[in-house]
Amino acid sequence: MAKICFGIDIGGTTVKIGVLSMEGKFLDKWEITTRTEENGKYILGDIADSLKKYVADKGIDMADVVGAGMGVPGPIKDDGTVLKCANLGWGVFNCAKELSDLLGVPVKAGNDANVAALGEQWQGGGKGHDDLVMVTLGTGVGGGIILGGEIVAGVNGAAGEIGHIHIVAPEDTIGTCGCGNHGCLEQVASATGIVKLAKRLVEETDTPTSLRDLPQITAKDVLDAAKAGDAGAESVVDKMAGYLGDALAAICAVVNPEIIVIGGGVSKAGQYLIDKIQAAFTPNAFHALRDTQFALATLGNDAGMVGAARLVLQ
Amino acid sequence: MAKICFGIDIGGTTVKIGVLSMEGKFLDKWEITTRTEENGKYILGDIADSLKKYVADKGIDMADVVGAGMGVPGPIKDDGTVLKCANLGWGVFNCAKELSDLLGVPVKAGNDANVAALGEQWQGGGKGHDDLVMVTLGTGVGGGIILGGEIVAGVNGAAGEIGHIHIVAPEDTIGTCGCGNHGCLEQVASATGIVKLAKRLVEETDTPTSLRDLPQITAKDVLDAAKAGDAGAESVVDKMAGYLGDALAAICAVVNPEIIVIGGGVSKAGQYLIDKIQAAFTPNAFHALRDTQFALATLGNDAGMVGAARLVLQ
Repeated sequence: MAKICFGIDIGGTTVKIGVLSMEGKFLDKWEITTRTEENGKYILGDIADSLKKYVADKGIDMADVVGAGMGVPGPIKDDGTVLKCANLGWGVFNCAKELSDLLGVPVKAGNDANVAALGEQWQGGGKGHDDLVMVTLGTGVGGGIILGGEIVAGVNGAAGEIGHIHIVAPEDTIGTCGCGNHGCLEQVASATGIVKLAKRLVEETDTPTSLRDLPQITAKDVLDAAKAGDAGAESVVDKMAGYLGDALAAICAVVNPEIIVIGGGVSKAGQYLIDKIQAAFTPNAFHALRDTQFALATLGNDAGMVGAARLVLQ
Repeated sequence: MAKICFGIDIGGTTVKIGVLSMEGKFLDKWEITTRTEENGKYILGDIADSLKKYVADKGIDMADVVGAGMGVPGPIKDDGTVLKCANLGWGVFNCAKELSDLLGVPVKAGNDANVAALGEQWQGGGKGHDDLVMVTLGTGVGGGIILGGEIVAGVNGAAGEIGHIHIVAPEDTIGTCGCGNHGCLEQVASATGIVKLAKRLVEETDTPTSLRDLPQITAKDVLDAAKAGDAGAESVVDKMAGYLGDALAAICAVVNPEIIVIGGGVSKAGQYLIDKIQAAFTPNAFHALRDTQFALATLGNDAGMVGAARLVLQ
């Protein structure tokens, strides 16, 4: 039978489990609930049970399973040691070794944002490029740096934490970032940040905007209104894209990647958003960085599973 | 005889040539003039002649020469192809291959700032650390990123160009950066930048400062006055260190190194400057980055030769 591998993406609510070919194609995928009770002590056992049942049901020989990769929502060292994982209730322990002992196959683990970046590099928006920066614009702003086809994890597992680059001018900073700082990129470039900027526009200015008529504003509302020509909404997008483009120019001055891949829920705004970000990036980027390519992520919620599988194949 | 290697650091005025042991200790070093006439066509030949004469004079068997590394002042690809080297008059060609053909030993080449960073990582202020960011504060601001003991060159050879991170607020930006942009870190954090900020203080404010009495102001004057308690000079250093600390916090959010090594002429201000930079870094850095170490470079002008030698030993 052909060799296969498992790609596991552990989130605070569900664990996504994928079975992939060596070429990175899905053979199967499903989700199980993340049981975070009792400091998340059941999570790895539940994953192992689910995979063992799958293997038994399908009549798969475990000798054909090359290994399992796993993305976890927190800082993690190359050897699989989780440093802290508040969402799961996990303290410090080697999650890769523990799952490997349960499954009897090699396991590698990485930070979920980094692993998703690796997925996009292998099979998604960054396919064909060894050096890539990925930005995930969701509730927060995550990031992943891939150089030479491998994750840059950093000595504390904090490489690619680009949502916490301190870049926002005091006049555009609203409240405190989740990390405790002020002026983090995440405060303006995440879905949450876009909504905050839009609410400030509605509540603190007389700028005409269709957003004023909405009972509740979402990031999608803002981007849709901007695309439809609403100047007020566009000013919010320009501010968000301005800071993001400037931060990306700084990131490129550090690692000079071939391509920047933009993912996360906010990236559903598509090429319109890419154009806005690129318009801010280009004038602020060092001349040798101006031909950096931009692309949309293509794997969506599958990126973590694909990247996790890649991790164990490296 | 024990194996040896050559470390070559090509500058716009002189070429520094070092002969090093495999452990990175100097056995000999000297300089020759950089002949930039006729698009720098004599430079590599001059280096080869100088090394061949040395080898002959010392009775060294070329079989004991492991190879030569070379730092060049411009963007360069991993295979040794110079992309542009205005200071030397060089266009696009493979300088490593050409010197290798002349010498008959393996040659590797890298950007001079990156190679100096590798030297500090191997034998200098970053010794014992595999993941390092080096900042060189001289006439400009250079940088080098070392991850896993290897240079991060970037797809266009522009990784580590941290002097051109766009970070300076419009009110602190004086004129245009050498790269054509405005607001580059180099415009405030280089020796030139410090002098510009100090001149602005003297010419455009009534702030009492001893700098006002000097016929000409150097960066050293500013740092010495600040150390001696001159509040005006200290405000200049605080501004410079503020932007530098903020940029370093952003750089660490990208690659999360173990240590930041500060070199270049301005770094002669020593621990006083490190303390100022760190005071700006810490509040702006993501919490997982706050224990990043800071150190002074220790190799001075030898860093390029040491790093070049390291390059060919990797």
